[in-house]
Amino acid sequence: MKRGRFITLEGGEGAGKSTQSRRLASWLRGRDIDVVETREPGGAPGADAIRALLVTGETGRWTPPAEALLHYAARAEHLARKILPALDAGQWVLCDRFADSTMAYQGYGHELGRAPIEALEEWVVGASGRPDLTLIFDIAPEAGLARAGRRGGAEDRYERMDIAFHARLRDGFLDIARREPERCVVLDAGQPEAEVAARAVEAVAGRLFR
Amino acid sequence: MKRGRFITLEGGEGAGKSTQSRRLASWLRGRDIDVVETREPGGAPGADAIRALLVTGETGRWTPPAEALLHYAARAEHLARKILPALDAGQWVLCDRFADSTMAYQGYGHELGRAPIEALEEWVVGASGRPDLTLIFDIAPEAGLARAGRRGGAEDRYERMDIAFHARLRDGFLDIARREPERCVVLDAGQPEAEVAARAVEAVAGRLFR
Ligand SMILES: Nc1ncnc2c1ncn2[C@@H]1O[C@H](COP(=O)(O)OP(=O)(O)OP(=O)(O)O)[C@@H](O)[C@H]1O
Ligand SMILES: Nc1ncnc2c1ncn2[C@@H]1O[C@H](COP(=O)(O)OP(=O)(O)OP(=O)(O)O)[C@@H](O)[C@H]1O
Ligand SMILES: [Mg+2]
Ligand SMILES: [Mg+2]
Repeated sequence: MKRGRFITLEGGEGAGKSTQSRRLASWLRGRDIDVVETREPGGAPGADAIRALLVTGETGRWTPPAEALLHYAARAEHLARKILPALDAGQWVLCDRFADSTMAYQGYGHELGRAPIEALEEWVVGASGRPDLTLIFDIAPEAGLARAGRRGGAEDRYERMDIAFHARLRDGFLDIARREPERCVVLDAGQPEAEVAARAVEAVAGRLFR
Repeated sequence: MKRGRFITLEGGEGAGKSTQSRRLASWLRGRDIDVVETREPGGAPGADAIRALLVTGETGRWTPPAEALLHYAARAEHLARKILPALDAGQWVLCDRFADSTMAYQGYGHELGRAPIEALEEWVVGASGRPDLTLIFDIAPEAGLARAGRRGGAEDRYERMDIAFHARLRDGFLDIARREPERCVVLDAGQPEAEVAARAVEAVAGRLFR
């Protein structure tokens, strides 16, 4: 059984990750690829219980190190129970947020720095869980937050953090992309939905169908 | 303000940690020391929410790395919100389980090894959260489990793990004590309660009142 491909979708609030994950999944299915769509935090029973602790409540509910550790605890469950088994079974996995979100939000946004998050990534994700391709949806924080606000919902703990936080995490995602150009593709998420979808397909086709 | 002292009580299930924490607190109060009694996992609002995920449910509910990360997330909250502020205010803190429990349970019991747990300890606990004294209550796993079973309660996820697990974690605690003899004192917890309490007081008086 040939191992499937692992694609992650990253970016700030309201960038269009969830929208584009659905579109990309349907494009891949049109090419007879068996696709699993999933998202973080969550994606496995224990991870979903942790998600509830992370995405609701006061913005200052967790100290930044605790927040990073909770995201990694959820990720460990998600990898072991869903992502790695699917890849091993030859399925492609599309994951809406993954390790780069912890680096951007906790490492850059909450300013924990890269080192502790890199250590967690190396331990929990390692080589076997590293994405084959990461699409980074880049948008001005104000524009993304306006989109996310229109969508509504109670899972808005991160959206309520201040604009300086969101500016730092945007820079964080761009820095991550600069450091790993083989893995990451930055897409202009301020464009219309269909336009962004076309660029995402180009990236997947160009990098994973060669 | 002189910083308070930080004493942790460690050992396997039913060793008598909670019993001895109460006795030691009352002995210290008799010497006019302002004592905060606390326990892990838990001790702060977020940490208590994490505790509920850890101490109930199926034994295999969490993969070992997720379990270690959850314990450290709770510990980060507990340190920041309760332990360090109390020490800074000159109070003595008695903590029923702390970092050595994660090393013993996840590092030795679940066999994750020392390295990843040491890295978490260094990052989250660091020098400022290191105990001044650790009392390790040592007892044969069968005897401790029999005591804990008599006590009852729903928080028994670890008690239900197999006896080989409990044997490994006992060895883990003894190994930790051997590696850090300045910080750790091993007490024979199979003795009668009052006898163990006397040995605990001796250790505290001998090490912290010089
Ligand atoms: N290219 C686009 N142009 C305009 N609106 C868009 C675009 N892409 C998505 N939207 C809309 O913006 C809102 C947020 O999109 P979506 O939920 O996909 O973002 P997200 O990145 O998953 O957000 P979050 O980080 O909050 O999960 C939705 O209402 C969606 O329909
Ligand atoms: N020295 C002792 N001899 C006999 N019984 C004891 C002794 N110390 C404690 N016990 C009893 O054993 C039971 C477990 O004690 P305790 O709750 O203090 O242990 P513990 O180490 O805190 O356990 P756990 O790890 O489950 O929290 C209690 O019923 C307690 O009264
Ligand atoms: Mg989304
Ligand atoms: Mg106890």
